[in-house]
Amino acid sequence: MQLFEIFRKYLQEKVELTDAQLDLIRSTSKERKIAKREFYLREGEISGHNTFVVKGLLRLYRIDEDGNEHIMRFAPENWWISDRESYNTGEPSKFIIDALEKSEVLIWTKEDSEFVYGEIPAFRAFGEGLFVESFIAYHNRIYNSISSTAEEKYKNFVKTYPDIFNRVPLHMVASYLGVTRETLSRVRRHFTLK
Amino acid sequence: MQLFEIFRKYLQEKVELTDAQLDLIRSTSKERKIAKREFYLREGEISGHNTFVVKGLLRLYRIDEDGNEHIMRFAPENWWISDRESYNTGEPSKFIIDALEKSEVLIWTKEDSEFVYGEIPAFRAFGEGLFVESFIAYHNRIYNSISSTAEEKYKNFVKTYPDIFNRVPLHMVASYLGVTRETLSRVRRHFTLK
Repeated sequence: MQLFEIFRKYLQEKVELTDAQLDLIRSTSKERKIAKREFYLREGEISGHNTFVVKGLLRLYRIDEDGNEHIMRFAPENWWISDRESYNTGEPSKFIIDALEKSEVLIWTKEDSEFVYGEIPAFRAFGEGLFVESFIAYHNRIYNSISSTAEEKYKNFVKTYPDIFNRVPLHMVASYLGVTRETLSRVRRHFTLK
Repeated sequence: MQLFEIFRKYLQEKVELTDAQLDLIRSTSKERKIAKREFYLREGEISGHNTFVVKGLLRLYRIDEDGNEHIMRFAPENWWISDRESYNTGEPSKFIIDALEKSEVLIWTKEDSEFVYGEIPAFRAFGEGLFVESFIAYHNRIYNSISSTAEEKYKNFVKTYPDIFNRVPLHMVASYLGVTRETLSRVRRHFTLK
């Protein structure tokens, strides 16, 4: 199936659009393939696109002064990914996006996104709804980070990303959760034994 | 100075509005006083207002199954506060808002906010900008929570809320940071000695 056909299926479950509207959304999109380990956004570049993952797996992360990677999000199929701060402010990103698996994405420039939002109010409302959902997810993640044990963090991770555990190395999950690899191994053993 | 006059000053630094527009914003606002320790939003209620703190100090928090409080945000003067998830979904809130000091707030119902946004596009853009700023602040807080030491978390807290340390008990700052009181005491001594 072509990339846009997969996206169309995703979209039609979320918002009602006419064929003409879908054609406009399609005509402003671009397809892009990303090889495994290829950078999609480098530190210092501007995150100027809305990016929908059709196939594969991307991640958004940042490297601290000591060279440690800290993973902010994973984006498997049907997820969107960008550095929202850079996208909104137009400032260079402090984050990096790369592909953990060979991936295929659909992208819209900020300019085209704004144009399509202007033409299709229902699509704008959909985009705004996605943003609110991301905000609420962050809110919950902060609550978990200050209130939860490593066990609960692990459970929440599995709920958010049901199949990511089998697709990425353990140290990346530990990085996302902000716990050590040793703690995560202990927690997983605990759950496996139950 | 009347509450709305203080708000008007705040607003005029952020967005250009005509007198007629300011009158509309004023006419849809309501003033409310909140006593120290009074609940402004109880768990299970719907967070149906936009609330601007003119005087005093509020907090948004949640109580876990073991009865521990976890503070999500403080809202001193010139901050906004609501449970955004409940506000957007219309579902009962899992969070609580109360006053840590005697406070005075300006409030707009969701309905009135939408009406005013419809009438004044610049005010809508301002509101959306605030939401994006909150999102970016959450993004950075998550990055800090997974990447930072207790020392760095403390420094970030002081940057975000320069004077809150003198206004709330230590255990509330520890709750916000997701560290123990003992760790926070150690960190503070460290900074005081430097």
